[in-house]
Amino acid sequence: MSNTIQEFNDYRSKMNEVILGKQNKVINRLFNLDTNTYAEGALSTKTKEMLGLVASMVLRCDDCIKYHLGKCHEQGISTAEMYEIFAVANIVGGTIVIPHTRRAAEYWEELNNQ
Amino acid sequence: MSNTIQEFNDYRSKMNEVILGKQNKVINRLFNLDTNTYAEGALSTKTKEMLGLVASMVLRCDDCIKYHLGKCHEQGISTAEMYEIFAVANIVGGTIVIPHTRRAAEYWEELNNQ
Amino acid sequence: MSNTIQEFNDYRSKMNEVILGKQNKVINRLFNLDTNTYAEGALSTKTKEMLGLVASMVLRCDDCIKYHLGKCHEQGISTAEMYEIFAVANIVGGTIVIPHTRRAAEYWEELNNQ
Amino acid sequence: MSNTIQEFNDYRSKMNEVILGKQNKVINRLFNLDTNTYAEGALSTKTKEMLGLVASMVLRCDDCIKYHLGKCHEQGISTAEMYEIFAVANIVGGTIVIPHTRRAAEYWEELNNQ
Amino acid sequence: MSNTIQEFNDYRSKMNEVILGKQNKVINRLFNLDTNTYAEGALSTKTKEMLGLVASMVLRCDDCIKYHLGKCHEQGISTAEMYEIFAVANIVGGTIVIPHTRRAAEYWEELNNQ
Amino acid sequence: MSNTIQEFNDYRSKMNEVILGKQNKVINRLFNLDTNTYAEGALSTKTKEMLGLVASMVLRCDDCIKYHLGKCHEQGISTAEMYEIFAVANIVGGTIVIPHTRRAAEYWEELNNQ
Repeated sequence: MSNTIQEFNDYRSKMNEVILGKQNKVINRLFNLDTNTYAEGALSTKTKEMLGLVASMVLRCDDCIKYHLGKCHEQGISTAEMYEIFAVANIVGGTIVIPHTRRAAEYWEELNNQ
Repeated sequence: MSNTIQEFNDYRSKMNEVILGKQNKVINRLFNLDTNTYAEGALSTKTKEMLGLVASMVLRCDDCIKYHLGKCHEQGISTAEMYEIFAVANIVGGTIVIPHTRRAAEYWEELNNQ
Repeated sequence: MSNTIQEFNDYRSKMNEVILGKQNKVINRLFNLDTNTYAEGALSTKTKEMLGLVASMVLRCDDCIKYHLGKCHEQGISTAEMYEIFAVANIVGGTIVIPHTRRAAEYWEELNNQ
Repeated sequence: MSNTIQEFNDYRSKMNEVILGKQNKVINRLFNLDTNTYAEGALSTKTKEMLGLVASMVLRCDDCIKYHLGKCHEQGISTAEMYEIFAVANIVGGTIVIPHTRRAAEYWEELNNQ
Repeated sequence: MSNTIQEFNDYRSKMNEVILGKQNKVINRLFNLDTNTYAEGALSTKTKEMLGLVASMVLRCDDCIKYHLGKCHEQGISTAEMYEIFAVANIVGGTIVIPHTRRAAEYWEELNNQ
Repeated sequence: MSNTIQEFNDYRSKMNEVILGKQNKVINRLFNLDTNTYAEGALSTKTKEMLGLVASMVLRCDDCIKYHLGKCHEQGISTAEMYEIFAVANIVGGTIVIPHTRRAAEYWEELNNQ
C-alpha cells in the first residue's frame, strides 16, 4: 500500500479511537449510523459509495473524498465510471471542485497502482 | 400533473428561455453540457440522476432537488431506493438537510400520485 | 399562536410523519439522535439550543433557524442574548447571513408577541 | 417600480429597522461597515457591486443577489455585462447556481422594465 | 507549548500583521469588530466562544476551529463539554464534519497536555 | 519564481494532464469552458479575474484563490485594489474567510516579490 494511503488510514483510525474513547453517546451513535448508511439495501453498497463520494466532492471535503475513493475501489468501480462521478460533481458543484478533483485523481491513481 | 409540478416546470422553462435568449456563450454551453452529464455512459442515466440528486440535497438547493426528483421518477426509482438516497444525503450533510428532505418527500409524493 | 408559527409547526409535523412512516432505519435513527443531541448533559439544553441556532444561521437554513428560535424561546432566552447570538452568526458567517437574520428577527418578534 | 422590487425593498427596510433598534453594537457596526465596503476607493463602486453580486450568487443567497442587482442597475451595468457576471458565477459555483440565476434573470428584467 | 500550537499562533500573528499593515479600513475594522464580538455581554465570553467554535465547525474551517479551541481552553471548558459541542456540530453539519472533528480532537489533546 | 508558486503551478499542470488524459468529454469540455469564461468580452479579463477571485474567496478554496491571484497579478492589479477585493470577500463571507485571506496575503507577497 502506498504511503499516502497508509498514512490516511492510520491517522483516521488513531483519531477515531481518541474520539470514540470519550464515550459521547451522540457522536458514537452517529459514527455507528454512518457505517450502516452504506450497507446493502434497496440500493447496493456500490451505488451508495458512489453517492457518498459525489456528496463529499460537492461539499469539498478531501478526507471524505479519499475515504469514499477507497471504498469505491474496493467495490470494483472502473476509472471510466469514476470519471463520470467526477463529471457530475464538477458540473453540479462548479470549477471550485476542480482542485479537489486533482487530489482525488492523484489518490485514485495510487489506489489503482498499489 | 399536480399544480406544483406544473408550476415548477413552467417557471423553469420560461426563465431558461429568457437566459438562453441572451446568447451568452459560456452560459449556453454550460446548460448544454449539463444535459450531456446525465447521458448513458459507463454509468447509467439512472445512477447519474441519483448522483445529481444527492449532490443537490447536500448543497441544499430545493429547485435542483425537484428537478432531479422528477428525473429519478422517470427512471423508475422506487420509494425504498429514494429514501436510501435521502439517508445518504442526511448522514453526509447533517440535520441541516432535513427541511429540504421534507420538501423533497412532499414533491416525491406528488410525483407518485399524479 | 401566530399563523406563521402554527403553519411552520404543522408542516414540520405532517412531513416528519410522512418521512418516518417510510421506515428507513438510518433516517429514523438520525431523527431520534437529533432529539438526543439537545438533552441536558455536561452542557445545558439552553446552551445547546443556542449552539444549534448559531450553526443553523451560519449554514443559512431558515427552517432550522425557526425551529431553534422556538426552542430558545422555550428556554427563556432574552432578546439581548438572542441578538448576541445573531452577532456571532453574522460576524462568523458574514453579511450573507443578514437576510436570514431579518427573517429570524421577524419570527423572534412573533414568538415574543404570541 | 414593480411590486416585487417594492416589496423586497420595503421588507428589507422594515426589518433592518427592527434589528438596528435592538442596539446590539456588533450588529449595528457590521451593518455600517457593510455600507462602507462598496464606497469608491482603489476600485470603483461599480466594480465592487459586481464583486458583491458574484459573491452572493456563488453563496446562493437570493436576497443578497436582489440587493446587488438593484445596485448594479443603479451603476448602469448593461445586460451583456450582467450575463458575463452570471457566467462567472455559474462556472465557479456550478449548475447549483442555475435556479438562483433564473430568479436573478427575472429580477433583472423587472429592474430594466420599470 | 506544543510545536503545533506555537506554529499556529505564530503564523496567525505574522500574517495578521501583514494584512493590518496594508491599512484597508474595512478589513481593519472587521478584525477589530471580530474581537469585540466575543466580549462579555448578555452572554458570557465562555458561551460566545462555544458559539464561535460550533459555527467554525459546521463551516469546516480548520484554522477557525483551532483558534476557538484555544479560546475555549482558556475559558476552562471541560472535555465532556467540548465533546457535546462536537456532537452538535456533527449532527447539524453531518459526517462531512468528522474529518475536522478528528483534527479538532487532536488539537484539543495538545491544548490539554501542554 | 518562488518555490511555492512553482510548486503550485507544477502540481496543477501535472494533475490537469492526468485528468484530461482520461478523455471524459464532460470534464474536458468544462475545463475548456472555464478558460473561455475569463476571456475579454463586455467585461475585461481584469474585471473577470477579480470576480473569479472574490467567488473563490467566499467559497474558501485556497487553490482557486492562488490561481486567480496569479491571474490578477498578470493583469497588473495593485495591492490597494487587491485588499479591496479581500474586503468584499471578508464582509460578504465573514470572518471564516480570514484564514484564507492570510494565505492569500502571503501568496500575494510572493507574487509581488518574485
